[in-house]
Amino acid sequence: MLIGMVASAAGTFAQTDPLPSWNDGKAKSTILDFVGKVTREGGPDYVRPAERIATFDNDGTLWAEQPVYFQLQFAFDEVKRLAAQNPDWKTREPFRSVLNRDLKGLAASGEKGLLQIMAATHTGVTTDQFAKAVANWLASARHPTKQRPYDELVYQPQLELLAFLRANGFKTFIVSGGGVELMRVFAEKAYGIPPEQVIGSSGVVKFRLGSDGKPELFKEAKVEFIDDGPGKPVGINRFIGRRPILAFGNSDGDLQMLQYTTAGSGLRLALILHHTDAEREWAYDRTSRIGKLDKALDEGKAKGWTIVDMKADWKTVFPPERRP
Amino acid sequence: MLIGMVASAAGTFAQTDPLPSWNDGKAKSTILDFVGKVTREGGPDYVRPAERIATFDNDGTLWAEQPVYFQLQFAFDEVKRLAAQNPDWKTREPFRSVLNRDLKGLAASGEKGLLQIMAATHTGVTTDQFAKAVANWLASARHPTKQRPYDELVYQPQLELLAFLRANGFKTFIVSGGGVELMRVFAEKAYGIPPEQVIGSSGVVKFRLGSDGKPELFKEAKVEFIDDGPGKPVGINRFIGRRPILAFGNSDGDLQMLQYTTAGSGLRLALILHHTDAEREWAYDRTSRIGKLDKALDEGKAKGWTIVDMKADWKTVFPPERRP
Repeated sequence: MLIGMVASAAGTFAQTDPLPSWNDGKAKSTILDFVGKVTREGGPDYVRPAERIATFDNDGTLWAEQPVYFQLQFAFDEVKRLAAQNPDWKTREPFRSVLNRDLKGLAASGEKGLLQIMAATHTGVTTDQFAKAVANWLASARHPTKQRPYDELVYQPQLELLAFLRANGFKTFIVSGGGVELMRVFAEKAYGIPPEQVIGSSGVVKFRLGSDGKPELFKEAKVEFIDDGPGKPVGINRFIGRRPILAFGNSDGDLQMLQYTTAGSGLRLALILHHTDAEREWAYDRTSRIGKLDKALDEGKAKGWTIVDMKADWKTVFPPERRP
Repeated sequence: MLIGMVASAAGTFAQTDPLPSWNDGKAKSTILDFVGKVTREGGPDYVRPAERIATFDNDGTLWAEQPVYFQLQFAFDEVKRLAAQNPDWKTREPFRSVLNRDLKGLAASGEKGLLQIMAATHTGVTTDQFAKAVANWLASARHPTKQRPYDELVYQPQLELLAFLRANGFKTFIVSGGGVELMRVFAEKAYGIPPEQVIGSSGVVKFRLGSDGKPELFKEAKVEFIDDGPGKPVGINRFIGRRPILAFGNSDGDLQMLQYTTAGSGLRLALILHHTDAEREWAYDRTSRIGKLDKALDEGKAKGWTIVDMKADWKTVFPPERRP
């Protein structure tokens, strides 16, 4: 009987590794140690549940971001979908280049061209219409090389970390340079993060009465807030109003969020995902056009932040396919 | 034994009226009925917990707003406190009028004067410094006629309603024209609403490195967002990203929030607090300078929204004194 209980307890213990997709190593033990300390009531590092705020970047931290940010891929796909309603796009830049997969032409249109593409695919519709367009795209689009729906290219180890934090009384937030209205469509299902815990970049939205007399929110072609770099602590203050005790990023755009998080009093945990796995995912850092990690890598190493090495620290990268 | 159980159950039932400060009547029964329906699993009006979003205006809905908005009273008190560091204020308008309690002089300085007072008392400091100033004010200031701390002039029936909604899986939010950084200082303690569920008006905040090299957030003298009128649905979309199923306001500034809430599909509940109690609180509506309720009262009556009559519907207005 006693032996049975011990065996059963050991079995339970073995089964309940909260981070099974993380290899044993410094990153994993640092996370487990941190969570253990801030949740130990009466301990010197105890943090009450309401203050257990964890913020995660999205692109390159919770889901992949190569070969281009998925939101940009959405914009390109939308240009193709909307081309029938916009016959002049066949000959008008930057749309012509997108429709002809002419990367040189697109590059020539520069940032101005990109903003035109974003405006044409993200604005001039109600928030409800936009959410529907995103949902339709996620249901049908496939990543160009991984051949999977974009919302399946989330990181399994991070899903486990988010769930582990929540099981320990943390409130998990996304703090991303990506568009907030795009992320909110899939964040709840993909990450278990509800819309009100998603912070991102946004355009101006106006309240108006629609043609049916019903109130609606209309997305205008004007940038409102860029939730990147120094914008991240500003966004955290604006939306959360509390300093996180844990922040996780992967690029220089996350540097100020990590600085702000670690500058608070008491125990804090800053983590950086280093993309080192060319085989299972991608390997890039200091010179990458997307997700450049240079200054934050230096500062993170100097300050003893936890640098997660994807190749070494992660047993699995992506979750199993949901839709075969 | 059976009789004992029945008596005990009846006793439990009697003791657990979730809204003891609400008189029995249409308003109370409408609330109880609504919450019963949206939480009844399998019922036609069931709403899953994640979608149970309730938004409350603050000034005049959760706490009093007479004779002037409490935030304005804070600003006046801060002018007095900061006068020693600003000797020129003795002769400089609009500060001179505030220091001399010269209401005519203050009125003469108009909206421009008011903005100067708000800038002088709400900006040019870090977010941490501002939160400290608010906390100090709440600890020492007393309402001019009620002689109580401002954060005790919250409405007891609303505290019960907030708790009742949360006990039924609702997430409760403040959506107020008031400054978000002021409300967040007391909302958790006063209402049980954490900072990340407080939406309000805000000024521009900048990330910077302080003199000690530590990152800090600095409040600039520039308005960023006015969370009032048509700004309320915009704020709800920006911060929550979901349409509320219940909204509670008290003035024309809440009209668009109530319209937006009730325009959603499924069961919705719109409530308006009508200040009808000159004896225990204040009586004001269509012609009031503060908390004007005119258009929203007409539209609410026409559309069958729940008009809460403070005098008739509330057994108690304010909670017992915490600090005698």
